[in-house]
Amino acid sequence: MCHDVTCHDAAGLADLVMARCDELAACSEESGRITRRFLTAPMLEVHDRLGSWMRQANLQTRADDAGNLIGRRIAETAIRTLIVGSHLDTVPGGGRFDGVLGVLIGVAVAETLGDKRLPFHLDVVGFSEEEGVRYSMPYLGSSAVAGLFQQEWLERADSNGTSMREAISAFHLDADSIAEAAYSPDEVIGFVEPHLEQGPVLERAGLPLGVVSGIAGQSRLRLRFQGKAAHAGTTPMLSRCDALAMAAEFVCEVRSLGRQTTGLRATVGRMDVTPNATNVIAGRVELSLDVRHLNNLQRERAIDNLLAAGKRIANRENGTLVVIEQTSQHAMEVDAALSELLAKSIGQCGYETLQMQSGAGHDAVVMAQRFPVAMLFLRHPGGVSHHPDEHVERDDVAAAIEVMSQFVVGLAQQCGA
Amino acid sequence: MCHDVTCHDAAGLADLVMARCDELAACSEESGRITRRFLTAPMLEVHDRLGSWMRQANLQTRADDAGNLIGRRIAETAIRTLIVGSHLDTVPGGGRFDGVLGVLIGVAVAETLGDKRLPFHLDVVGFSEEEGVRYSMPYLGSSAVAGLFQQEWLERADSNGTSMREAISAFHLDADSIAEAAYSPDEVIGFVEPHLEQGPVLERAGLPLGVVSGIAGQSRLRLRFQGKAAHAGTTPMLSRCDALAMAAEFVCEVRSLGRQTTGLRATVGRMDVTPNATNVIAGRVELSLDVRHLNNLQRERAIDNLLAAGKRIANRENGTLVVIEQTSQHAMEVDAALSELLAKSIGQCGYETLQMQSGAGHDAVVMAQRFPVAMLFLRHPGGVSHHPDEHVERDDVAAAIEVMSQFVVGLAQQCGA
Repeated sequence: MCHDVTCHDAAGLADLVMARCDELAACSEESGRITRRFLTAPMLEVHDRLGSWMRQANLQTRADDAGNLIGRRIAETAIRTLIVGSHLDTVPGGGRFDGVLGVLIGVAVAETLGDKRLPFHLDVVGFSEEEGVRYSMPYLGSSAVAGLFQQEWLERADSNGTSMREAISAFHLDADSIAEAAYSPDEVIGFVEPHLEQGPVLERAGLPLGVVSGIAGQSRLRLRFQGKAAHAGTTPMLSRCDALAMAAEFVCEVRSLGRQTTGLRATVGRMDVTPNATNVIAGRVELSLDVRHLNNLQRERAIDNLLAAGKRIANRENGTLVVIEQTSQHAMEVDAALSELLAKSIGQCGYETLQMQSGAGHDAVVMAQRFPVAMLFLRHPGGVSHHPDEHVERDDVAAAIEVMSQFVVGLAQQCGA
Repeated sequence: MCHDVTCHDAAGLADLVMARCDELAACSEESGRITRRFLTAPMLEVHDRLGSWMRQANLQTRADDAGNLIGRRIAETAIRTLIVGSHLDTVPGGGRFDGVLGVLIGVAVAETLGDKRLPFHLDVVGFSEEEGVRYSMPYLGSSAVAGLFQQEWLERADSNGTSMREAISAFHLDADSIAEAAYSPDEVIGFVEPHLEQGPVLERAGLPLGVVSGIAGQSRLRLRFQGKAAHAGTTPMLSRCDALAMAAEFVCEVRSLGRQTTGLRATVGRMDVTPNATNVIAGRVELSLDVRHLNNLQRERAIDNLLAAGKRIANRENGTLVVIEQTSQHAMEVDAALSELLAKSIGQCGYETLQMQSGAGHDAVVMAQRFPVAMLFLRHPGGVSHHPDEHVERDDVAAAIEVMSQFVVGLAQQCGA
């Protein structure tokens, strides 16, 4: 059933992808761990190496003015483009696969295509920025490609006081031309992002690949329980207004609602206690609340319920609950046709698959605001991402190359090639 | 009923005590707030001023080699001594009454006695150290007086690397003679400590003074819930091992047991979350547990119950609970006869009173290991101690002076004077 990529080819290309991930892992701002933020010096090295691999795969390379590196497999007379890729930056102390793997799979897929004629250009993109580390603002690369980059972001400064505009200029790019990095929705058939799952679902299911059915919408809140600091020894239990006890009860509510509601992920990951002393009842606790769901309404309802529960707790204990900050991002819908073709391609290559949501954000979230989008997840043994232990199996990478190649060929057939 | 201290005298002396508290508050290591640690330079100023007030009250002054300042009202032919006092040091950013007030009430009581003949010496003591700030070791002054000072403490270093031995030497005292600061149990009739309540009980009861029925025993634990850090977006609720959720459930158990158990005070005041990030499920939480009760058995049983509950929670969630550190101090028993006389003196001066436990530790805890002890609590409006807002009413100070004076006279009568 599978098109002409043999398992043997895919295994060899997967070895190459693994070796290239190792090689790019050495391009780091810090020795001993992988840290590669937006347009820092190691990113230039990545462009050099990745660019030469792209050219070996017969891709025509260019960097746009947001620092994205793009390799195009030109299809003569074609006017539309399929974009495949992911991001090239990392978190501080990150892993060697998050992002980079998806770009290198794109390059490997181009290799598998040989001189096959396609009715569209294939652009393999390495986005310059997804993690939001250097400028506390994620998705800089994909925002530029999607035409969503905001000029005012250029004035943001990093922790050294270097503005984004200066960083772009130091990379020999022209910040004032970033708008030209945008693709027109008319010319884009779709964007497909292969990425590590960064979670345990595929591993538990014993499957190498999954098709993302949507990326959960996310709300992030900062909350403050205000109580009254008092002496832990002298204040009777019933006279207390203990902010930590209120916050603790709230955390239990969060876990409980999360467990009761299908598909909801609700987390308090951060808690800062004041004064945080053994013998003082806490006067104030600030905490984070992270709520995600594929369904925006369910997510919003969960937040309403949790805030109401928190206020009930605070009222009962004579304290207060304040929402300090609240931001949210809507759920991303994938393109049904592209996702169906991706699932079909997995089957054609002889693998079982799973439709699964993504809890994490990805470049695909931004791209989906302008273009049809699909995502392919690779099994993530151990599930530890943003960490040096991040891992992927060679055979799963081979499966992803086969499937993506099959997908491109299948798309070409649909387009009537 | 009251002996010859008129309310008028007491009010005038209370004004003096208040003014002296203000004056000593200016003796601080930091400008703008009160910080006076063991044998720092401002303590020398305190000795100067307090010493001269003691001498005005016909007390014969000396500093022992632990830096305690003692003023003796000599009773000719007497061989035993009543000790009255409290401590002269403060926490960083402390209040003007905690400790100092009890010493100055002692001086005022000496003033009220005029040339009255007593069958015992009256020693007003200002302990050099109670808060445990400079050397992370409390009760240095009272330990010396009680003969419980350990020579090895002298080698402890403060945050500047100055050893306790060096600090004592810089104060022109002889660390090797600290043992001589000890009073023999045979010669001490008792120790009576007047002190701010540092809690809300007397204020709520509308009473100026209370007699301490005991000081709660205290256990301090450091605990660690170990879970597994994971991505807040990608990890399903039922696959989590969330250390913060475990810790939160534990905090709720602590509050619940505290509320159910008469006289128990159980507090989690400190919580340190790792990695403490909005989008990461907490992998580890360290927290404090502070448990106090007048009854040692009840306190120990509460700890057993709480640790068992914590372990049940951790087991159910596939995490672990570890006790990192556990220290405890037994409850202090007051001397029944001295406490009864103190309560009687309150009544003789026309006040109602309350028998109440102390949740906080005091010099009396150490003194009680060697000598009969009683404690007088003064109402603490607002209940905020260890803080610049610490407050006491002039009239309550006057009441304390009257009562303490009545107590001394009553004790003299019991001794057959």
